[in-house]
Amino acid sequence: MDAQEFREAANATIDEIITYFDTLGSRNVVSTVEPGYLRKLLPDEAPQEGEPWAAIHKDMEAKIMPGITHWNHPGFHAFFPCASSYPSLLGELYSAALTTAAFNWICSPAVTELETVVLDWLAKTLGLPACYLSTGPTRGGGVIQGSASEAVLTAMVAARDKYLRETVPPLGSGEGASVTEEEYEERVMVKKSRMVALATTLTHSSAKKAALILGCRFRAIRVREEDGYALTREGLAAALAECRAQGLEPFFLAATLGTTDVCSVDDFEGISAALADHVPPGAPGEVWVHVDAAYAGAALVCPEVQESTRIGLVERFHSFDMNMHKWLLVNFDASCFFVRNREWLTQALSVNQAVYGNKASDGGLVTDYREWQIPLGRRFRSLKIWFVLRSYGVKGLQEHIRRTMKMGEDFAGALKDRSDLFEIVSGPSFALTVFRLVAKSEGASLEERNTQTRALYEKVNASGKMWLTSTELDGRFAIRLVTAVRTTEPEHIQTAIKTLVEIAEEVLRG
Amino acid sequence: MDAQEFREAANATIDEIITYFDTLGSRNVVSTVEPGYLRKLLPDEAPQEGEPWAAIHKDMEAKIMPGITHWNHPGFHAFFPCASSYPSLLGELYSAALTTAAFNWICSPAVTELETVVLDWLAKTLGLPACYLSTGPTRGGGVIQGSASEAVLTAMVAARDKYLRETVPPLGSGEGASVTEEEYEERVMVKKSRMVALATTLTHSSAKKAALILGCRFRAIRVREEDGYALTREGLAAALAECRAQGLEPFFLAATLGTTDVCSVDDFEGISAALADHVPPGAPGEVWVHVDAAYAGAALVCPEVQESTRIGLVERFHSFDMNMHKWLLVNFDASCFFVRNREWLTQALSVNQAVYGNKASDGGLVTDYREWQIPLGRRFRSLKIWFVLRSYGVKGLQEHIRRTMKMGEDFAGALKDRSDLFEIVSGPSFALTVFRLVAKSEGASLEERNTQTRALYEKVNASGKMWLTSTELDGRFAIRLVTAVRTTEPEHIQTAIKTLVEIAEEVLRG
Repeated sequence: MDAQEFREAANATIDEIITYFDTLGSRNVVSTVEPGYLRKLLPDEAPQEGEPWAAIHKDMEAKIMPGITHWNHPGFHAFFPCASSYPSLLGELYSAALTTAAFNWICSPAVTELETVVLDWLAKTLGLPACYLSTGPTRGGGVIQGSASEAVLTAMVAARDKYLRETVPPLGSGEGASVTEEEYEERVMVKKSRMVALATTLTHSSAKKAALILGCRFRAIRVREEDGYALTREGLAAALAECRAQGLEPFFLAATLGTTDVCSVDDFEGISAALADHVPPGAPGEVWVHVDAAYAGAALVCPEVQESTRIGLVERFHSFDMNMHKWLLVNFDASCFFVRNREWLTQALSVNQAVYGNKASDGGLVTDYREWQIPLGRRFRSLKIWFVLRSYGVKGLQEHIRRTMKMGEDFAGALKDRSDLFEIVSGPSFALTVFRLVAKSEGASLEERNTQTRALYEKVNASGKMWLTSTELDGRFAIRLVTAVRTTEPEHIQTAIKTLVEIAEEVLRG
Repeated sequence: MDAQEFREAANATIDEIITYFDTLGSRNVVSTVEPGYLRKLLPDEAPQEGEPWAAIHKDMEAKIMPGITHWNHPGFHAFFPCASSYPSLLGELYSAALTTAAFNWICSPAVTELETVVLDWLAKTLGLPACYLSTGPTRGGGVIQGSASEAVLTAMVAARDKYLRETVPPLGSGEGASVTEEEYEERVMVKKSRMVALATTLTHSSAKKAALILGCRFRAIRVREEDGYALTREGLAAALAECRAQGLEPFFLAATLGTTDVCSVDDFEGISAALADHVPPGAPGEVWVHVDAAYAGAALVCPEVQESTRIGLVERFHSFDMNMHKWLLVNFDASCFFVRNREWLTQALSVNQAVYGNKASDGGLVTDYREWQIPLGRRFRSLKIWFVLRSYGVKGLQEHIRRTMKMGEDFAGALKDRSDLFEIVSGPSFALTVFRLVAKSEGASLEERNTQTRALYEKVNASGKMWLTSTELDGRFAIRLVTAVRTTEPEHIQTAIKTLVEIAEEVLRG
């Protein structure tokens, strides 16, 4: 493909993308293909001879598009959104053209430096305490990870390393002075076998997966409806006591601002009080607290949300993560991970290799983000964040969050107006409402109610015009509806309500 | 930014990208900015009001471009390349537009299914044995990871899980029948503390980093110049014996096809022989062998390389990884990871959460790639691979590999012609030549020779017209020169030789 062919193909693709967004609402949200549809349409092997773009391009609409589920469809109310916006697309385009592995500063200084700057911009915009700024008092800073899963994994690895440094006497000094390398390794292994990572039953599964990758013990503390599905001081204190009784050593806690199931927020004040009773903050062996705000963290661009969540309290914790690629108009992937002291990351994750040596790195003058993350290489992801922050401005982002949260409140209000049909299980919280059908008759069993709500859920999704996802809370099947997609307008919410009411009446009648 | 503004901005960006590639050779390869240059040029905070594209765009050339190192510059001979091509850029563009989190099949069936198909295409093109095909006899298959680091980490996690399943009696049956959950967890912890991952002193640092993330023991087996820097049967057998003597249990070996330093290839036949003496293949507790072919694996598109590397032997191993984003014209990131039995991944990495339930997944009919990788979400990365495979065709890719390997041979030949100046330390191997200056005088110490070679290295890089990286082999400082970038032509290699000769003469004279 030469430059002219590329120009023509790319310009046509741009037009196609615009048309795609303009007409998105007329498609079904969820693909309806059968498993295995695509293999039947494609050859068994790569072609020997190169093909012209026209041949490849025609397969996009014919073979790929039927298998696409449209995450920016106005009727996408499932999971949490996966954002896209025009300025973000431009960022992806430049990033692909200026390709670099970007593991070290010298690989492309702009990639590292823009990332540091825009993450400081973002931290300030979200109202995070100064300890998370690269210019802050504690040598903190931000780094873009591919996903919130990688962020919690990175935090957990750093936390384990910090805990070991603080609790196992180091080789060659103090109590470790007379210890051989083998004995030291043995002590570390024994210590690791006692360490346990904590989360709650509503923490995202990525925390459990991180513990599984680390190979460490994991305990999920049960959170209760009467506490708003939040981890409380009492709940955490009881879990810490139980660990101690079993001879286990908690080193990490994944706290959440906006759980996936119900968008609950853990009690940060209570957590820090329970931990202070366990090991005082800053003392050796303190528990690392990572705040997973993957979705709801976006709402912190609004000062009223900073206040209601008391976000300043996270200065007592160790790391914080939010995904701009969910609710903040930046394309996947852009998980913004902040840490109170960047040395906790570099001490845990530095692995040197001669071939990566260079003057800037060796002189310690620059940030090499490979030491802040799991992989070595990385894409130029800060560009799209920079473009979105500048193109929308903070006010534009606030408007987007307030507008979509307002739709969530309107939706929940409409359900409350029909309390003859619906019961709100939780919310509206951060544009998420969780609900189920009322009982058909007074003595309806849990199972009957679940079956009915599931019937409603499946019929609504079968319409193709919207996509809802579900969850289970203490055995109760419930529907989640999120109103956080950029293209969703109040009229779409009205349609959603109308559809839900009609089908709910049908289910309860029949 | 509305559709019309986006159209204009995107079309202009496309033109800019074409001009960028057309004039790339006239820029300096490596950015010459000072650390911290960008912060001085940017405001301290995100703007409150949105800015027009023109204002953002003008900062691209003025502030970002000076900080870019050009990985597709014809004079880029550093590290290994980071590819870019026009069809790949189109793939990135579509992928960004059709954004999805793609953790489950239903999130966009095309994303999953195209990935399975193109990875089968690729496996066949590379001559991998059928056990790595999704349609193969052992339920194998491929998955696109973000980087080779993630691939080796994923393999190591799966290997640990497999080893534990095979060596710790499971709960509730056989020897594990009378064991409580606590006792079982304890046994697993004790076993983990004895397990050790193996690699060599030239294995990429990502293997060590993976072990560090797992928190398991790690041993690097020393490889020697006289063995061509390859792991041999004897070397591995000795390491296995040493582990046994220390009461340690090897569960994982990272073998390499194309080490970063010298592009050496470990002795696959010897490795499998040494392992068969340790634990027979397929027996409980066998050592998982992961083949890291991150860079050199691309050359397997040529049948002559399949033959010379005896790639069919990898059917005795467990996983294989190569990066199309290095030498095979696909943009970063596209690390293609293959496993002989996909259940090894899903058994190790499945973590369920109610909200991700759906009929297709629950019915077991589809692949959910979140269970094959570290993160949950993922980008639509197979599109760019599909576009590149089709646009170039297998023959086009073979031509690219042969052309760039030929330049490597020509370069090494020119060095040999000037054996009064240069000594080849290793290669040419897969377009990489490693060399140093000859001794200035007969009795020159290692240190003197290193200083001279370093002087040559620094002067060449200071020219700005090319970028070389260095390494250290048994204390010898050596220069690496790779000729694998798409835009590099024989004339650029001639210039490189001319420059090297001139500066070498200068260094040896003065």
